[in-house]
Amino acid sequence: MADIYDFGLVGLGVMGRNFILNVADNGFTAFGNDLDEEKVNALIEEGGDTTKVNASMDAAAFVQALSTPRKIMLLVPAGKVVDIVIESLLPHLEQGDIIIDGGNSFFTDTDRREAYLKEKGINFFGAGVSGGAKGARKGPSIMPGGSREAYQHVKPIFEAVAAKYQEEPCVAYLGPKSAGNYVKMVHNGIEYGLMQLTSEIYDLLKKAGGLTNEELQQTFADWNQGRLQSFLVEITSDIFSQKDELAEGHLVDKILDKAKQKGTGKWTSQNAMDLGIPVPTIDIAVSMREISALKDERILADEIYDRPTVAKIEKDVLIEKAEKALYFAFIITYAQGMHQLADASKEYGYELDLGEIAKIWRAGCIIRAALLADITEAYRADGTLQNLLLSPTFAEKVRETVGAARELVAHGATNGIPLPGLTNALTYFDAYTSSRLPLNLIQAQRDYFGSHTYERLDREGIFHTGWEE
Amino acid sequence: MADIYDFGLVGLGVMGRNFILNVADNGFTAFGNDLDEEKVNALIEEGGDTTKVNASMDAAAFVQALSTPRKIMLLVPAGKVVDIVIESLLPHLEQGDIIIDGGNSFFTDTDRREAYLKEKGINFFGAGVSGGAKGARKGPSIMPGGSREAYQHVKPIFEAVAAKYQEEPCVAYLGPKSAGNYVKMVHNGIEYGLMQLTSEIYDLLKKAGGLTNEELQQTFADWNQGRLQSFLVEITSDIFSQKDELAEGHLVDKILDKAKQKGTGKWTSQNAMDLGIPVPTIDIAVSMREISALKDERILADEIYDRPTVAKIEKDVLIEKAEKALYFAFIITYAQGMHQLADASKEYGYELDLGEIAKIWRAGCIIRAALLADITEAYRADGTLQNLLLSPTFAEKVRETVGAARELVAHGATNGIPLPGLTNALTYFDAYTSSRLPLNLIQAQRDYFGSHTYERLDREGIFHTGWEE
Repeated sequence: MADIYDFGLVGLGVMGRNFILNVADNGFTAFGNDLDEEKVNALIEEGGDTTKVNASMDAAAFVQALSTPRKIMLLVPAGKVVDIVIESLLPHLEQGDIIIDGGNSFFTDTDRREAYLKEKGINFFGAGVSGGAKGARKGPSIMPGGSREAYQHVKPIFEAVAAKYQEEPCVAYLGPKSAGNYVKMVHNGIEYGLMQLTSEIYDLLKKAGGLTNEELQQTFADWNQGRLQSFLVEITSDIFSQKDELAEGHLVDKILDKAKQKGTGKWTSQNAMDLGIPVPTIDIAVSMREISALKDERILADEIYDRPTVAKIEKDVLIEKAEKALYFAFIITYAQGMHQLADASKEYGYELDLGEIAKIWRAGCIIRAALLADITEAYRADGTLQNLLLSPTFAEKVRETVGAARELVAHGATNGIPLPGLTNALTYFDAYTSSRLPLNLIQAQRDYFGSHTYERLDREGIFHTGWEE
Repeated sequence: MADIYDFGLVGLGVMGRNFILNVADNGFTAFGNDLDEEKVNALIEEGGDTTKVNASMDAAAFVQALSTPRKIMLLVPAGKVVDIVIESLLPHLEQGDIIIDGGNSFFTDTDRREAYLKEKGINFFGAGVSGGAKGARKGPSIMPGGSREAYQHVKPIFEAVAAKYQEEPCVAYLGPKSAGNYVKMVHNGIEYGLMQLTSEIYDLLKKAGGLTNEELQQTFADWNQGRLQSFLVEITSDIFSQKDELAEGHLVDKILDKAKQKGTGKWTSQNAMDLGIPVPTIDIAVSMREISALKDERILADEIYDRPTVAKIEKDVLIEKAEKALYFAFIITYAQGMHQLADASKEYGYELDLGEIAKIWRAGCIIRAALLADITEAYRADGTLQNLLLSPTFAEKVRETVGAARELVAHGATNGIPLPGLTNALTYFDAYTSSRLPLNLIQAQRDYFGSHTYERLDREGIFHTGWEE
């Protein structure tokens, strides 16, 4: 039994089971490990042939069943569980073995674990995996970071199991240390932004256009045939066609409007603030999940205030404008996320290749979209691009769509339809493209009350004025 | 010389020197300490009578000059310096002595220091001080947290030196541990929001109304006579009247539009996200300072994109609407900050009295405003108020002004004038007052791709749908 399986995986929940079956489908033998006997047995049964897929509850037996250097992936909840699993494996491992954390671990945890395991001669990877349960089974996008040399051992397996975009696997070595977890974190931040945007465009189409669920389904399906083609637009279309199994009508109308979160969007926003990089469309997506959770307060507040009567817009006109506005806001959201990655790369020494990242997001992951092929091209054309908005290709797309965003933001504001993601995308655009902003006043105020000094437009130096005299 | 001075202060920069002179003005004797001989001498000279105000570079001499229990305030930069100063004082202190950190220390640092010093029998206070240099000299707002018993020793001095609002001192014991630093942090977050709002209203008045600096000065001065009366509106008026000393024209037009930050706004936003409390007007104020710092990118971007030609609004009409919109957005900003404090109080066990906090912000501090008297009243009327928007008094104010905010947000969006603070205030309002938000779609998406489950409107329980079948 010893030394025969190519790949090990700890954590046989839905993601883990699907990932290991995916590995086996691609001609590698794989061995699973979980403390839950049911999960172990379920995998063995589903695998069918134990010479190809096997599993055990015992950590020692698990480790001994793997060929060296061992390639052990963890798909367990982020946090303490990762440390516990690492400690349970350690006594059985040898120098040169490889542990890959496939969960959404916070990037500083990955740095800590990588340094700790390096002392023991073990290679540690943080590898974000995106694509949900189906992606894990059929081909996810994988974002690994760690030792470049050790990656060579993992590469054939990851390239085989990853999603393919026109034959190219959606996985690449991204950089040292926590580069992989960091990129996955920002991926999820972008995901928060895109989801918020689709939800508010849905609200707008319904309130200002009176679209039925059937029409919403058709609209998103049509959009998915065009430049908005993306996983999230596609599943949004599906969602509107889902009938309720417990009552009359469409399921979407019965779902409680409290959106949960698991933290990666919040981390993206918080870390962007540490870096000093503005990502307001992601920030507001986090805030909106928080507001959604305050359902009881919202019900109270709704009773206190009247809403404007919504002025209707002719359906076809609205749909056309909404498509443009959503496309505009998607671009802005990706631009903010990529901007954050560019800066994080410098700050944390990741040496990220943004074109490579866009490339491995083109399929498999939740934020996959036709747009990502364009983003890949933009970074191929100019690897030093500071912001997508400075790319000539994107400038053209933005020029054509920003007008619709303006009209719909104005309509939402006037008619009391909250479009916070779209408005933050627009105000970000208007601010980012302003060579002159009114924050000279803020510097004046800071100097006035706190003697914080200011710089001038017309000469070098640091200045202070005795404003109060 | 021993045991004769009532109050000690370490850090004789402009804030420290002003604070100690304020203490002396109020009949207490005070002793200063600084490593910088010049600053020590400057204080002695300015104090005039060394039996009332004295100072030394020597920590031992400084501590020995104070009556017990010693009351020693630190006004030194937040961070490591605070720890260094504490260590330098410790060998000379006795059980029961009191150290008060008057800087903007991060609240978890205060908790750590308080626990560390408690073991040694020393009382530690985090006491936010707001009001800038002038406030320190003439009467700041002081926000102390720590041991309630030990506060009794500090109280007479703080009440004497604090700003007064209709005879009531702008200082109160706020709660245990880091309550004082936390409240000051959120104070500064609100400050960021209010400053951003004034800066964008200035931009709007200039671009859409064509107001000159003289007219801006007059407008803000007029507003300061009404319900917008506040320190920030007052100094904004002053700023527009300041002539440039180095060149022709008004100083405000020469100041570089890159706004710096020292971190308290960022901390407020980041911690609000940890608590799950939405403060988007503060978040966007942080983002706008970041965008302002990207001046080089903004200049590049400005050349790539055309702006809409701004449609002008008749001056008087615009000024009237802007006053309403600014008032509306000020209310929303305070509402968000108070909401954060209410939640932090539960999370960290601060037992904050929000009415008391609003009360001590009515004078002395940077965010002092006529509005704070109303906020104090609202919490006096209902101490359990979840959000200011749920208060009948504030509902009336909001109903009267939200229409103007709608019109100006629409105007900004249509005409390419970025009003991110105002728009975030409006979309927050529209979302918070919506009993139904479109985030049911986000829960559907999450369940679709990640099996994250959802709740329903019509029945209890946790549900999952096999969307993809």
